[in-house]
Amino acid sequence: MRIKMRNIVLVIEYDGTNYHGWQIQKNVVTIQETITKAIKKITNEDVDLIGSSRTDAGVHALHQVANFKTCTNIPTSKIPNALNSVLPADIVIKDAFEADMDFHSRYSAKGKRYKYIIYNRRFSSPILKNYSWHISKSLDVEKMRESLKYLEGTHDFSAFKASGSSVKSPVRTVRDISLKKNGFNVEFEIEADGFLYNMVRIIVGTIVDVGLGKINPIDVKEILDSKNRCMAGKTAPPQGLFLTKIYY
Amino acid sequence: MRIKMRNIVLVIEYDGTNYHGWQIQKNVVTIQETITKAIKKITNEDVDLIGSSRTDAGVHALHQVANFKTCTNIPTSKIPNALNSVLPADIVIKDAFEADMDFHSRYSAKGKRYKYIIYNRRFSSPILKNYSWHISKSLDVEKMRESLKYLEGTHDFSAFKASGSSVKSPVRTVRDISLKKNGFNVEFEIEADGFLYNMVRIIVGTIVDVGLGKINPIDVKEILDSKNRCMAGKTAPPQGLFLTKIYY
Repeated sequence: MRIKMRNIVLVIEYDGTNYHGWQIQKNVVTIQETITKAIKKITNEDVDLIGSSRTDAGVHALHQVANFKTCTNIPTSKIPNALNSVLPADIVIKDAFEADMDFHSRYSAKGKRYKYIIYNRRFSSPILKNYSWHISKSLDVEKMRESLKYLEGTHDFSAFKASGSSVKSPVRTVRDISLKKNGFNVEFEIEADGFLYNMVRIIVGTIVDVGLGKINPIDVKEILDSKNRCMAGKTAPPQGLFLTKIYY
Repeated sequence: MRIKMRNIVLVIEYDGTNYHGWQIQKNVVTIQETITKAIKKITNEDVDLIGSSRTDAGVHALHQVANFKTCTNIPTSKIPNALNSVLPADIVIKDAFEADMDFHSRYSAKGKRYKYIIYNRRFSSPILKNYSWHISKSLDVEKMRESLKYLEGTHDFSAFKASGSSVKSPVRTVRDISLKKNGFNVEFEIEADGFLYNMVRIIVGTIVDVGLGKINPIDVKEILDSKNRCMAGKTAPPQGLFLTKIYY
């Protein structure tokens, strides 16, 4: 019997449609709760499952990372299949590995990457309705792309932070930001050392205003400099957002 | 007030996940029934809605065509928005136009095109679970592609026809057939003058057997020549199938 405690890291993919986000809350079903219960089923332990990102209700993940400490003697390589056998089909454990005891999914993260899908066609898509933001009016993708350069690099992103969030510093470094057209999809990708609360969705809401001609690309610089949330666009809806990578 | 009867053609997109297929049946919800009820809501008429293809439960459509005769005076260009306003989000009317009175969505069709998506990765995809067939074992896509040439052209496709279907002739002409890899997706496309019942799904089940090494590409020719359903592979599941085009 194994008595050494292990720190197990899970790589997780999920469809957030039917969940109230990652974080455990009362009276609603969440991803963290569902996986914690699955771990209990296979280990009989009540673990503290630490996620790298607290995704909101309706947001999806192609690569979420979470870790927990356990005394179980289940071999690490068997953990994904063991968990998948008790998890619903909209949550899949893609990988599991053992890390140093001081590894922490959130605090050890050195960067994150998100994708946001806008569906730009007169009529909405029945297939993509839970995986994109439908915008009927034609978007000027070139102008949207032009606005991205103002957001690249290290800035105070206060203008793109939802009120009510308590973080020490509003300064983040955007390492990569891009926009491409793929059929009716307009696909936005952003990578940074970290993100403020709702930062990706407020950036998307703002560049959509550029695409609709409500504001000019250069206005995005002014919004950033203002550090004023009221200057930026509305928060894009959650269902277009995908957490795609965590860097350590 | 308009008194001329019109023959209205609808172009429809739908997510088949929550429907028991196209065709009206007792005690279950179908696409045909849902659209017929929507037409009743906006016209107050009980129309006979004729679909080009009776898609099975769980099968999706990116381009289904259906027509109905009506005395309504709603302008044709306003019909999509009027119907979409009363339809659920998983059915969208993309277009409507007026046709000659003798146009019939099914009998007038000169060809159809389908796409089938296989998701080929060790773990299933939470996002694509209702839109693909998950196959864990690695598929040899090159060998699958090699087998397609035997299916191209005019043949008796009895071996790829579900039993119980009553059609006059089992001869069909496959005008285009292809397979490509797109990330974890293996995307099969087929166009023919028409299809026998479950023909696309039985072809996919058979070429997957080629991809898994259970049979050789040349065996597909033998299966075709046998005209025996028992020789072919199993019927691939419905959720990977998309009706993508009807030609007139």
